[in-house]
Amino acid sequence: MAEHMPGWFTEIFQDQGTGFSLAIDAKVHEENSQYQHIEIYQTKTFGKLMVLDGCVMLTDRDNFLYHEMMTHPALFTHKAPRDVAIIGGGDCGTLKEVLKHPDIRKVTQIELDERVTRVAEEHFPDLCSSNDDSRAELLFADGIKWISDASPNSLDLIIVDSTDPVGPAEGLFAVDFYRNCHLALREGGLLVQQTESPLLHADTIIKNVHADMRKAGFKTSRTLPFPQPVYPTGWWSCTMASKNDNVTFFREADAAERSFRTRYYNEDIHRAALAVPEFMKAALK
Amino acid sequence: MAEHMPGWFTEIFQDQGTGFSLAIDAKVHEENSQYQHIEIYQTKTFGKLMVLDGCVMLTDRDNFLYHEMMTHPALFTHKAPRDVAIIGGGDCGTLKEVLKHPDIRKVTQIELDERVTRVAEEHFPDLCSSNDDSRAELLFADGIKWISDASPNSLDLIIVDSTDPVGPAEGLFAVDFYRNCHLALREGGLLVQQTESPLLHADTIIKNVHADMRKAGFKTSRTLPFPQPVYPTGWWSCTMASKNDNVTFFREADAAERSFRTRYYNEDIHRAALAVPEFMKAALK
Repeated sequence: MAEHMPGWFTEIFQDQGTGFSLAIDAKVHEENSQYQHIEIYQTKTFGKLMVLDGCVMLTDRDNFLYHEMMTHPALFTHKAPRDVAIIGGGDCGTLKEVLKHPDIRKVTQIELDERVTRVAEEHFPDLCSSNDDSRAELLFADGIKWISDASPNSLDLIIVDSTDPVGPAEGLFAVDFYRNCHLALREGGLLVQQTESPLLHADTIIKNVHADMRKAGFKTSRTLPFPQPVYPTGWWSCTMASKNDNVTFFREADAAERSFRTRYYNEDIHRAALAVPEFMKAALK
Repeated sequence: MAEHMPGWFTEIFQDQGTGFSLAIDAKVHEENSQYQHIEIYQTKTFGKLMVLDGCVMLTDRDNFLYHEMMTHPALFTHKAPRDVAIIGGGDCGTLKEVLKHPDIRKVTQIELDERVTRVAEEHFPDLCSSNDDSRAELLFADGIKWISDASPNSLDLIIVDSTDPVGPAEGLFAVDFYRNCHLALREGGLLVQQTESPLLHADTIIKNVHADMRKAGFKTSRTLPFPQPVYPTGWWSCTMASKNDNVTFFREADAAERSFRTRYYNEDIHRAALAVPEFMKAALK
Protein backbone atom coordinates (compact mmCIF):
# COMPACT_ATOMS: atom_id res chain seq x y z
CA MET A 1 0.00 0.00 0.00
CA ALA A 2 3.03 2.27 -0.24
CA GLU A 3 2.09 3.58 -3.66
CA HIS A 4 -0.61 6.01 -2.50
CA MET A 5 1.68 9.02 -2.24
CA PRO A 6 5.21 9.01 -3.64
CA GLY A 7 7.77 9.22 -0.83
CA TRP A 8 5.29 8.03 1.80
CA PHE A 9 4.34 4.70 3.29
CA THR A 10 0.57 4.72 3.79
CA GLU A 11 -1.50 2.15 5.64
CA ILE A 12 -5.20 2.33 4.84
CA PHE A 13 -7.67 0.99 7.40
CA GLN A 14 -10.55 0.52 5.00
CA ASP A 15 -13.09 -0.61 7.61
CA GLN A 16 -12.24 2.29 9.90
CA GLY A 17 -12.15 4.87 7.11
CA THR A 18 -8.75 6.15 8.25
CA GLY A 19 -5.20 6.12 6.95
CA PHE A 20 -1.78 6.76 8.47
CA SER A 21 1.33 7.80 6.55
CA LEU A 22 5.04 8.08 7.32
CA ALA A 23 7.52 9.96 5.10
CA ILE A 24 10.20 7.54 3.93
CA ASP A 25 13.72 7.83 2.60
CA ALA A 26 13.96 4.28 1.29
CA LYS A 27 12.76 0.71 1.52
CA VAL A 28 15.78 -1.05 3.01
CA HIS A 29 14.56 -4.65 3.10
CA GLU A 30 11.79 -6.77 1.61
CA GLU A 31 11.13 -10.50 1.58
CA ASN A 32 8.39 -13.08 1.54
CA SER A 33 8.87 -15.36 4.52
CA GLN A 34 7.03 -18.65 4.85
CA TYR A 35 4.25 -16.77 6.64
CA GLN A 36 4.11 -13.17 5.46
CA HIS A 37 5.48 -10.26 3.47
CA ILE A 38 8.14 -8.43 5.52
CA GLU A 39 9.24 -4.88 4.68
CA ILE A 40 11.63 -2.50 6.43
CA TYR A 41 11.65 1.22 5.58
CA GLN A 42 13.95 4.01 6.64
CA THR A 43 11.53 6.80 7.56
CA LYS A 44 12.41 10.48 7.70
CA THR A 45 11.37 11.09 11.32
CA PHE A 46 10.43 7.78 13.00
CA GLY A 47 13.64 5.82 12.43
CA LYS A 48 13.14 2.40 10.90
CA LEU A 49 9.67 0.99 10.26
CA MET A 50 8.68 -2.70 10.15
CA VAL A 51 5.66 -3.65 8.04
CA LEU A 52 4.09 -7.13 7.93
CA ASP A 53 1.60 -7.88 5.14
CA GLY A 54 1.11 -4.13 4.63
CA CYS A 55 0.42 -3.43 8.33
CA VAL A 56 2.65 -1.13 10.41
CA MET A 57 4.19 -3.18 13.22
CA LEU A 58 6.60 -0.77 14.86
CA THR A 59 9.02 2.10 14.45
CA ASP A 60 12.19 3.00 16.31
CA ARG A 61 10.65 6.17 17.62
CA ASP A 62 7.49 5.09 19.37
CA ASN A 63 7.70 1.34 20.08
CA PHE A 64 8.75 2.06 23.68
CA LEU A 65 5.15 2.95 24.54
CA TYR A 66 3.82 -0.42 23.45
CA HIS A 67 6.66 -2.55 24.76
CA GLU A 68 6.77 -0.90 28.18
CA MET A 69 3.00 -1.17 28.64
CA MET A 70 2.86 -4.82 27.49
CA THR A 71 5.33 -5.78 30.23
CA HIS A 72 5.88 -3.60 33.29
CA PRO A 73 2.25 -3.29 34.47
CA ALA A 74 1.89 -7.09 34.46
CA LEU A 75 5.33 -7.68 35.99
CA PHE A 76 4.63 -5.25 38.85
CA THR A 77 1.12 -6.67 39.34
CA HIS A 78 2.37 -10.24 39.82
CA LYS A 79 3.65 -10.68 43.37
CA ALA A 80 6.91 -12.43 42.40
CA PRO A 81 7.19 -13.28 38.70
CA ARG A 82 9.89 -15.78 37.76
CA ASP A 83 8.92 -17.67 34.59
CA VAL A 84 7.48 -15.83 31.60
CA ALA A 85 6.29 -16.89 28.15
CA ILE A 86 5.91 -14.46 25.26
CA ILE A 87 3.64 -15.60 22.42
CA GLY A 88 4.64 -13.77 19.25
CA GLY A 89 6.85 -10.79 20.01
CA GLY A 90 9.25 -11.57 17.17
CA ASP A 91 10.80 -8.09 17.17
CA CYS A 92 12.08 -8.88 20.69
CA GLY A 93 11.15 -5.49 22.19
CA THR A 94 8.84 -7.12 24.73
CA LEU A 95 11.53 -9.65 25.63
CA LYS A 96 14.01 -6.85 26.25
CA GLU A 97 11.64 -5.08 28.67
CA VAL A 98 10.85 -8.29 30.59
CA LEU A 99 14.54 -9.02 31.05
CA LYS A 100 15.04 -5.62 32.72
CA HIS A 101 13.44 -7.20 35.82
CA PRO A 102 16.31 -8.76 37.75
CA ASP A 103 14.23 -11.44 39.49
CA ILE A 104 13.05 -13.02 36.26
CA ARG A 105 14.44 -16.56 35.97
CA LYS A 106 13.40 -17.61 32.46
CA VAL A 107 11.65 -16.06 29.46
CA THR A 108 10.53 -18.33 26.65
CA GLN A 109 9.54 -16.54 23.46
CA ILE A 110 7.47 -18.51 20.97
CA GLU A 111 7.34 -16.68 17.65
CA LEU A 112 5.88 -18.35 14.57
CA ASP A 113 8.08 -16.64 11.99
CA GLU A 114 11.82 -16.85 12.60
CA ARG A 115 12.43 -14.36 9.77
CA VAL A 116 10.75 -11.56 11.77
CA THR A 117 13.34 -12.03 14.51
CA ARG A 118 16.26 -12.34 12.11
CA VAL A 119 15.20 -9.16 10.29
CA ALA A 120 14.72 -7.38 13.65
CA GLU A 121 18.22 -8.43 14.72
CA GLU A 122 19.58 -6.66 11.69
CA HIS A 123 17.36 -3.59 11.56
CA PHE A 124 16.27 -3.09 15.20
CA PRO A 125 19.46 -4.08 17.08
CA ASP A 126 18.42 -2.11 20.17
CA LEU A 127 15.23 -4.18 20.56
CA CYS A 128 17.26 -7.36 20.17
CA SER A 129 20.04 -6.32 22.54
CA SER A 130 18.94 -8.80 25.22
CA ASN A 131 18.44 -11.79 22.94
CA ASP A 132 21.70 -13.32 24.20
CA ASP A 133 20.67 -13.04 27.87
CA SER A 134 21.11 -16.49 29.42
CA ARG A 135 17.56 -16.28 30.82
CA ALA A 136 16.05 -15.96 27.32
CA GLU A 137 15.03 -18.86 25.09
CA LEU A 138 13.88 -18.04 21.56
CA LEU A 139 11.69 -20.69 19.96
CA PHE A 140 10.20 -20.48 16.50
CA ALA A 141 6.99 -22.43 16.68
CA ASP A 142 3.22 -22.20 16.99
CA GLY A 143 2.48 -20.42 20.28
CA ILE A 144 -1.05 -21.80 20.50
CA LYS A 145 0.27 -25.36 20.37
CA TRP A 146 3.19 -24.54 22.69
CA ILE A 147 0.80 -23.27 25.37
CA SER A 148 -1.46 -26.30 24.97
CA ASP A 149 1.59 -28.55 25.50
CA ALA A 150 3.01 -26.52 28.42
CA SER A 151 3.25 -28.18 31.83
CA PRO A 152 0.41 -27.15 34.15
CA ASN A 153 1.44 -24.63 36.81
CA SER A 154 4.74 -23.84 35.07
CA LEU A 155 4.44 -20.12 34.28
CA ASP A 156 3.88 -16.87 36.19
CA LEU A 157 3.10 -14.64 33.24
CA ILE A 158 2.03 -15.16 29.62
CA ILE A 159 2.34 -12.15 27.31
CA VAL A 160 0.47 -12.34 24.01
CA ASP A 161 2.29 -9.90 21.72
CA SER A 162 0.57 -10.67 18.44
CA THR A 163 -0.71 -9.08 15.27
CA ASP A 164 -4.40 -8.22 14.80
CA PRO A 165 -6.94 -10.99 15.47
CA VAL A 166 -7.15 -12.15 11.85
CA GLY A 167 -5.22 -14.95 10.16
CA PRO A 168 -2.65 -16.77 12.32
CA ALA A 169 -3.36 -14.56 15.38
CA GLU A 170 -7.09 -15.31 15.40
CA GLY A 171 -6.63 -18.39 17.60
CA LEU A 172 -4.94 -16.20 20.23
CA PHE A 173 -8.23 -14.37 20.82
CA ALA A 174 -10.20 -17.45 21.80
CA VAL A 175 -11.50 -19.12 24.93
CA ASP A 176 -9.71 -22.42 24.16
CA PHE A 177 -6.37 -20.63 24.10
CA TYR A 178 -7.17 -18.78 27.32
CA ARG A 179 -8.13 -22.10 29.01
CA ASN A 180 -4.73 -23.51 28.12
CA CYS A 181 -3.05 -20.33 29.41
CA HIS A 182 -5.00 -20.65 32.65
CA LEU A 183 -3.82 -24.24 33.03
CA ALA A 184 -0.18 -23.38 32.31
CA LEU A 185 -0.15 -20.56 34.87
CA ARG A 186 0.71 -21.02 38.53
CA GLU A 187 -1.39 -19.63 41.38
CA GLY A 188 -1.32 -15.83 41.07
CA GLY A 189 -0.44 -16.13 37.40
CA LEU A 190 -1.24 -13.40 34.88
CA LEU A 191 -2.13 -13.27 31.20
CA VAL A 192 -1.64 -10.02 29.27
CA GLN A 193 -2.59 -9.52 25.63
CA GLN A 194 -2.53 -6.65 23.15
CA THR A 195 -6.18 -5.80 22.52
CA GLU A 196 -6.32 -3.16 19.78
CA SER A 197 -7.80 0.36 20.03
CA PRO A 198 -10.14 1.27 22.91
CA LEU A 199 -11.88 3.78 20.64
CA LEU A 200 -12.49 1.31 17.82
CA HIS A 201 -12.83 -2.03 19.58
CA ALA A 202 -14.19 -1.48 23.12
CA ASP A 203 -17.55 -3.09 22.45
CA THR A 204 -16.27 -5.79 20.10
CA ILE A 205 -12.77 -7.26 20.47
CA ILE A 206 -12.09 -5.92 23.97
CA LYS A 207 -15.50 -6.88 25.31
CA ASN A 208 -15.13 -10.38 23.87
CA VAL A 209 -11.61 -10.78 25.28
CA HIS A 210 -12.90 -10.03 28.80
CA ALA A 211 -15.82 -12.42 28.42
CA ASP A 212 -13.60 -15.19 27.04
CA MET A 213 -10.91 -14.72 29.71
CA ARG A 214 -13.57 -15.03 32.44
CA LYS A 215 -15.07 -18.10 30.72
CA ALA A 216 -11.61 -19.64 30.74
CA GLY A 217 -11.46 -19.27 34.51
CA PHE A 218 -9.57 -16.02 35.03
CA LYS A 219 -10.90 -14.26 38.12
CA THR A 220 -10.36 -10.61 37.19
CA SER A 221 -9.40 -8.65 34.07
CA ARG A 222 -8.73 -5.05 33.16
CA THR A 223 -7.92 -3.19 29.92
CA LEU A 224 -5.08 -0.66 30.15
CA PRO A 225 -5.02 1.98 27.38
CA PHE A 226 -1.86 3.73 26.23
CA PRO A 227 -0.79 6.03 23.37
CA GLN A 228 0.68 4.42 20.26
CA PRO A 229 0.94 6.90 17.35
CA VAL A 230 1.56 4.44 14.52
CA TYR A 231 -1.49 2.26 15.25
CA PRO A 232 -5.08 3.16 14.25
CA THR A 233 -6.47 6.08 16.34
CA GLY A 234 -3.05 6.50 18.00
CA TRP A 235 -4.45 4.86 21.12
CA TRP A 236 -3.97 1.18 21.92
CA SER A 237 -4.50 -1.22 24.80
CA CYS A 238 -3.50 -4.36 26.57
CA THR A 239 -5.84 -6.50 28.62
CA MET A 240 -4.51 -8.18 31.75
CA ALA A 241 -6.20 -11.10 33.53
CA SER A 242 -5.34 -12.80 36.80
CA LYS A 243 -5.90 -16.42 37.78
CA ASN A 244 -6.62 -15.46 41.39
CA ASP A 245 -5.99 -11.86 42.31
CA ASN A 246 -7.33 -8.39 41.65
CA VAL A 247 -5.38 -6.94 38.69
CA THR A 248 -5.96 -3.39 39.90
CA PHE A 249 -3.47 -3.82 42.78
CA PHE A 250 0.23 -3.72 42.03
CA ARG A 251 3.59 -3.46 43.79
CA GLU A 252 3.62 0.35 43.72
CA ALA A 253 6.74 0.77 45.86
CA ASP A 254 8.67 -1.72 43.74
CA ALA A 255 7.53 0.05 40.57
CA ALA A 256 8.64 3.40 42.00
CA GLU A 257 12.02 1.98 43.02
CA ARG A 258 12.59 -0.06 39.85
CA SER A 259 16.27 -0.62 39.04
CA PHE A 260 16.00 0.15 35.32
CA ARG A 261 15.12 3.07 33.06
CA THR A 262 11.85 3.48 31.23
CA ARG A 263 10.64 6.24 28.92
CA TYR A 264 6.88 6.08 29.45
CA TYR A 265 6.13 3.72 32.35
CA ASN A 266 6.29 4.68 35.99
CA GLU A 267 4.12 3.95 39.04
CA ASP A 268 1.85 6.94 38.31
CA ILE A 269 1.40 5.90 34.68
CA HIS A 270 0.58 2.35 35.83
CA ARG A 271 -2.11 3.64 38.19
CA ALA A 272 -3.36 6.00 35.45
CA ALA A 273 -3.70 3.16 32.94
CA LEU A 274 -6.12 1.43 35.30
CA ALA A 275 -8.62 4.31 34.99
CA VAL A 276 -11.61 3.35 32.83
CA PRO A 277 -13.07 6.03 30.51
CA GLU A 278 -16.84 6.47 30.66
CA PHE A 279 -17.44 5.05 27.18
CA MET A 280 -15.48 1.91 28.08
CA LYS A 281 -17.48 1.41 31.27
CA ALA A 282 -20.58 1.47 29.09
CA ALA A 283 -19.08 -0.86 26.47
CA LEU A 284 -17.85 -3.43 29.00
CA LYS A 285 -20.89 -3.35 31.29
CA MET B 1 -4.42 18.84 0.58
CA ALA B 2 -7.39 16.62 -0.22
CA GLU B 3 -5.99 15.66 -3.62
CA HIS B 4 -3.43 13.12 -2.32
CA MET B 5 -5.70 10.10 -2.60
CA PRO B 6 -9.05 10.26 -4.40
CA GLY B 7 -11.91 9.79 -1.92
CA TRP B 8 -9.77 10.71 1.08
CA PHE B 9 -9.00 13.89 2.97
CA THR B 10 -5.31 13.80 3.89
CA GLU B 11 -3.46 16.17 6.20
CA ILE B 12 0.30 16.05 5.79
CA PHE B 13 2.47 17.13 8.72
CA GLN B 14 5.59 17.81 6.71
CA ASP B 15 7.83 18.69 9.67
CA GLN B 16 6.74 15.57 11.58
CA GLY B 17 6.97 13.28 8.57
CA THR B 18 3.48 11.93 9.21
CA GLY B 19 0.09 12.08 7.54
CA PHE B 20 -3.48 11.31 8.59
CA SER B 21 -6.36 10.49 6.25
CA LEU B 22 -10.11 10.16 6.56
CA ALA B 23 -12.33 8.51 3.92
CA ILE B 24 -14.87 11.04 2.70
CA ASP B 25 -18.22 10.90 0.97
CA ALA B 26 -18.33 14.56 -0.03
CA LYS B 27 -17.20 18.09 0.67
CA VAL B 28 -20.37 19.72 1.97
CA HIS B 29 -19.18 23.29 2.52
CA GLU B 30 -16.25 25.52 1.57
CA GLU B 31 -15.62 29.23 1.97
CA ASN B 32 -12.90 31.79 2.48
CA SER B 33 -13.73 33.78 5.56
CA GLN B 34 -11.96 37.01 6.43
CA TYR B 35 -9.38 34.95 8.31
CA GLN B 36 -9.10 31.49 6.84
CA HIS B 37 -10.23 28.78 4.44
CA ILE B 38 -13.07 26.78 6.01
CA GLU B 39 -14.05 23.34 4.71
CA ILE B 40 -16.61 20.82 5.94
CA TYR B 41 -16.53 17.21 4.75
CA GLN B 42 -18.91 14.33 5.29
CA THR B 43 -16.60 11.44 6.21
CA LYS B 44 -17.48 7.78 5.89
CA THR B 45 -16.85 6.82 9.53
CA PHE B 46 -16.11 9.96 11.62
CA GLY B 47 -19.26 11.99 10.88
CA LYS B 48 -18.61 15.53 9.74
CA LEU B 49 -15.09 16.98 9.62
CA MET B 50 -14.11 20.65 9.97
CA VAL B 51 -10.88 21.78 8.30
CA LEU B 52 -9.31 25.24 8.71
CA ASP B 53 -6.54 26.24 6.31
CA GLY B 54 -5.96 22.54 5.50
CA CYS B 55 -5.69 21.47 9.17
CA VAL B 56 -8.12 19.01 10.75
CA MET B 57 -9.98 20.80 13.56
CA LEU B 58 -12.53 18.27 14.69
CA THR B 59 -14.88 15.47 13.74
CA ASP B 60 -18.25 14.43 15.14
CA ARG B 61 -16.84 11.12 16.31
CA ASP B 62 -13.91 12.02 18.49
CA ASN B 63 -14.21 15.69 19.54
CA PHE B 64 -15.66 14.63 22.90
CA LEU B 65 -12.17 13.67 24.07
CA TYR B 66 -10.75 17.13 23.46
CA HIS B 67 -13.74 19.14 24.64
CA GLU B 68 -14.22 17.16 27.85
CA MET B 69 -10.53 17.38 28.75
CA MET B 70 -10.28 21.11 27.99
CA THR B 71 -13.04 21.82 30.49
CA HIS B 72 -13.92 19.36 33.26
CA PRO B 73 -10.44 18.94 34.81
CA ALA B 74 -10.10 22.72 35.20
CA LEU B 75 -13.70 23.19 36.38
CA PHE B 76 -13.30 20.49 39.05
CA THR B 77 -9.89 21.85 40.07
CA HIS B 78 -11.21 25.34 40.74
CA LYS B 79 -12.89 25.46 44.15
CA ALA B 80 -16.01 27.33 42.98
CA PRO B 81 -15.88 28.52 39.36
CA ARG B 82 -18.51 31.10 38.38
CA ASP B 83 -17.17 33.27 35.53
CA VAL B 84 -15.40 31.73 32.56
CA ALA B 85 -13.82 33.09 29.38
CA ILE B 86 -13.12 30.93 26.32
CA ILE B 87 -10.54 32.33 23.87
CA GLY B 88 -11.16 30.82 20.45
CA GLY B 89 -13.43 27.78 20.69
CA GLY B 90 -15.51 28.83 17.67
CA ASP B 91 -17.01 25.37 17.17
CA CYS B 92 -18.69 25.83 20.59
CA GLY B 93 -17.91 22.30 21.86
CA THR B 94 -15.92 23.70 24.79
CA LEU B 95 -18.71 26.15 25.61
CA LYS B 96 -21.22 23.31 25.68
CA GLU B 97 -19.13 21.31 28.18
CA VAL B 98 -18.58 24.33 30.48
CA LEU B 99 -22.31 25.03 30.57
CA LYS B 100 -22.96 21.49 31.86
CA HIS B 101 -21.74 22.77 35.24
CA PRO B 102 -24.85 24.14 36.99
CA ASP B 103 -22.97 26.64 39.20
CA ILE B 104 -21.44 28.52 36.27
CA ARG B 105 -22.83 32.07 36.15
CA LYS B 106 -21.39 33.44 32.90
CA VAL B 107 -19.30 32.17 29.99
CA THR B 108 -17.89 34.69 27.53
CA GLN B 109 -16.54 33.20 24.33
CA ILE B 110 -14.19 35.39 22.29
CA GLU B 111 -13.69 33.87 18.85
CA LEU B 112 -11.90 35.82 16.12
CA ASP B 113 -13.78 34.34 13.17
CA GLU B 114 -17.57 34.52 13.36
CA ARG B 115 -17.85 32.31 10.27
CA VAL B 116 -16.39 29.33 12.17
CA THR B 117 -19.27 29.56 14.64
CA ARG B 118 -21.91 30.11 11.94
CA VAL B 119 -20.62 27.11 9.98
CA ALA B 120 -20.51 25.03 13.20
CA GLU B 121 -24.12 25.99 13.98
CA GLU B 122 -25.13 24.54 10.62
CA HIS B 123 -22.89 21.45 10.48
CA PHE B 124 -22.23 20.60 14.15
CA PRO B 125 -25.61 21.44 15.74
CA ASP B 126 -24.90 19.18 18.72
CA LEU B 127 -21.79 21.19 19.68
CA CYS B 128 -23.78 24.42 19.36
CA SER B 129 -26.81 23.16 21.29
CA SER B 130 -26.04 25.38 24.30
CA ASN B 131 -25.30 28.58 22.37
CA ASP B 132 -28.68 29.99 23.39
CA ASP B 133 -28.07 29.34 27.10
CA SER B 134 -28.71 32.64 28.91
CA ARG B 135 -25.34 32.29 30.69
CA ALA B 136 -23.43 32.29 27.36
CA GLU B 137 -22.19 35.39 25.55
CA LEU B 138 -20.65 34.90 22.11
CA LEU B 139 -18.30 37.67 21.02
CA PHE B 140 -16.43 37.78 17.72
CA ALA B 141 -13.27 39.70 18.48
CA ASP B 142 -9.55 39.42 19.18
CA GLY B 143 -9.17 37.33 22.35
CA ILE B 144 -5.71 38.69 23.10
CA LYS B 145 -7.03 42.25 23.15
CA TRP B 146 -10.18 41.22 25.05
CA ILE B 147 -8.10 39.68 27.84
CA SER B 148 -5.83 42.75 27.99
CA ASP B 149 -8.94 44.94 28.38
CA ALA B 150 -10.67 42.66 30.91
CA SER B 151 -11.29 43.97 34.43
CA PRO B 152 -8.75 42.73 36.95
CA ASN B 153 -10.05 39.96 39.23
CA SER B 154 -13.11 39.36 37.06
CA LEU B 155 -12.71 35.73 35.95
CA ASP B 156 -12.34 32.31 37.60
CA LEU B 157 -11.22 30.35 34.56
CA ILE B 158 -9.76 31.21 31.16
CA ILE B 159 -9.79 28.43 28.54
CA VAL B 160 -7.55 28.94 25.51
CA ASP B 161 -9.10 26.72 22.81
CA SER B 162 -7.03 27.80 19.83
CA THR B 163 -5.39 26.51 16.68
CA ASP B 164 -1.66 25.69 16.55
CA PRO B 165 0.76 28.38 17.77
CA VAL B 166 1.38 29.86 14.34
CA GLY B 167 -0.35 32.85 12.70
CA PRO B 168 -3.17 34.47 14.73
CA ALA B 169 -2.78 31.97 17.61
CA GLU B 170 0.93 32.68 18.14
CA GLY B 171 0.20 35.54 20.54
CA LEU B 172 -1.77 33.10 22.74
CA PHE B 173 1.44 31.20 23.52
CA ALA B 174 3.29 34.17 25.01
CA VAL B 175 4.20 35.53 28.43
CA ASP B 176 2.48 38.90 27.76
CA PHE B 177 -0.82 37.15 27.14
CA TYR B 178 -0.37 35.00 30.25
CA ARG B 179 0.35 38.13 32.36
CA ASN B 180 -2.93 39.64 31.22
CA CYS B 181 -4.72 36.36 32.00
CA HIS B 182 -3.14 36.37 35.47
CA LEU B 183 -4.38 39.92 36.05
CA ALA B 184 -7.90 39.14 34.82
CA LEU B 185 -8.21 36.08 37.10
CA ARG B 186 -9.48 36.21 40.65
CA GLU B 187 -7.70 34.56 43.58
CA GLY B 188 -7.70 30.81 42.93
CA GLY B 189 -8.17 31.44 39.22
CA LEU B 190 -7.07 28.95 36.55
CA LEU B 191 -5.79 29.15 33.01
CA VAL B 192 -6.03 26.09 30.73
CA GLN B 193 -4.68 25.95 27.20
CA GLN B 194 -4.45 23.33 24.45
CA THR B 195 -0.73 22.51 24.16
CA GLU B 196 -0.26 20.15 21.20
CA SER B 197 1.19 16.61 21.30
CA PRO B 198 3.19 15.40 24.33
CA LEU B 199 5.20 13.12 22.04
CA LEU B 200 6.11 15.85 19.55
CA HIS B 201 6.22 19.01 21.66
CA ALA B 202 7.18 18.13 25.25
CA ASP B 203 10.60 19.78 25.11
CA THR B 204 9.56 22.68 22.89
CA ILE B 205 6.04 24.14 23.02
CA ILE B 206 4.97 22.47 26.27
CA LYS B 207 8.21 23.28 28.08
CA ASN B 208 7.98 26.91 26.93
CA VAL B 209 4.33 27.19 27.98
CA HIS B 210 5.21 26.10 31.54
CA ALA B 211 8.15 28.51 31.71
CA ASP B 212 6.09 31.41 30.37
CA MET B 213 3.11 30.70 32.66
CA ARG B 214 5.44 30.74 35.69
CA LYS B 215 7.11 33.94 34.45
CA ALA B 216 3.66 35.51 34.20
CA GLY B 217 3.08 34.78 37.89
CA PHE B 218 1.16 31.50 37.89
CA LYS B 219 2.15 29.45 40.92
CA THR B 220 1.74 25.89 39.60
CA SER B 221 1.15 24.26 36.23
CA ARG B 222 0.59 20.75 34.90
CA THR B 223 0.18 19.21 31.44
CA LEU B 224 -2.66 16.68 31.11
CA PRO B 225 -2.39 14.31 28.10
CA PHE B 226 -5.40 12.69 26.45
CA PRO B 227 -6.12 10.67 23.29
CA GLN B 228 -7.24 12.58 20.19
CA PRO B 229 -7.17 10.37 17.06
CA VAL B 230 -7.46 13.08 14.42
CA TYR B 231 -4.53 15.18 15.69
CA PRO B 232 -0.83 14.36 15.02
CA THR B 233 0.31 11.24 16.99
CA GLY B 234 -3.27 10.69 18.19
CA TRP B 235 -2.25 12.04 21.60
CA TRP B 236 -2.84 15.63 22.68
CA SER B 237 -2.63 17.74 25.80
CA CYS B 238 -3.86 20.72 27.74
CA THR B 239 -1.76 22.64 30.23
CA MET B 240 -3.43 24.02 33.34
CA ALA B 241 -1.98 26.75 35.57
CA SER B 242 -3.20 28.14 38.86
CA LYS B 243 -2.79 31.65 40.24
CA ASN B 244 -2.47 30.36 43.80
CA ASP B 245 -3.20 26.67 44.29
CA ASN B 246 -1.78 23.29 43.47
CA VAL B 247 -3.35 22.13 40.18
CA THR B 248 -2.91 18.47 41.11
CA PHE B 249 -5.71 18.64 43.71
CA PHE B 250 -9.28 18.63 42.55
CA ARG B 251 -12.81 18.23 43.89
CA GLU B 252 -12.83 14.45 43.47
CA ALA B 253 -16.16 13.84 45.19
CA ASP B 254 -17.87 16.53 43.11
CA ALA B 255 -16.34 15.07 39.93
CA ALA B 256 -17.59 11.59 40.90
CA GLU B 257 -21.08 12.93 41.66
CA ARG B 258 -21.32 15.27 38.65
CA SER B 259 -24.86 15.91 37.51
CA PHE B 260 -24.19 15.50 33.78
CA ARG B 261 -23.05 12.82 31.36
CA THR B 262 -19.57 12.54 29.88
CA ARG B 263 -18.12 10.01 27.46
CA TYR B 264 -14.42 10.09 28.44
CA TYR B 265 -14.01 12.16 31.61
CA ASN B 266 -14.59 10.85 35.11
CA GLU B 267 -12.79 11.31 38.43
CA ASP B 268 -10.42 8.38 37.69
CA ILE B 269 -9.56 9.75 34.24
CA HIS B 270 -8.91 13.17 35.80
CA ARG B 271 -6.49 11.65 38.34
CA ALA B 272 -4.91 9.56 35.54
CA ALA B 273 -4.31 12.61 33.35
CA LEU B 274 -2.18 14.10 36.14
CA ALA B 275 0.36 11.25 35.82
CA VAL B 276 3.55 12.38 34.11
CA PRO B 277 5.28 9.93 31.73
CA GLU B 278 9.02 9.46 32.26
CA PHE B 279 10.00 11.19 29.03
CA MET B 280 7.93 14.25 29.98
CA LYS B 281 9.56 14.44 33.40
CA ALA B 282 12.89 14.57 31.59
CA ALA B 283 11.68 17.14 29.05
CA LEU B 284 10.15 19.47 31.65
CA LYS B 285 12.94 19.18 34.25
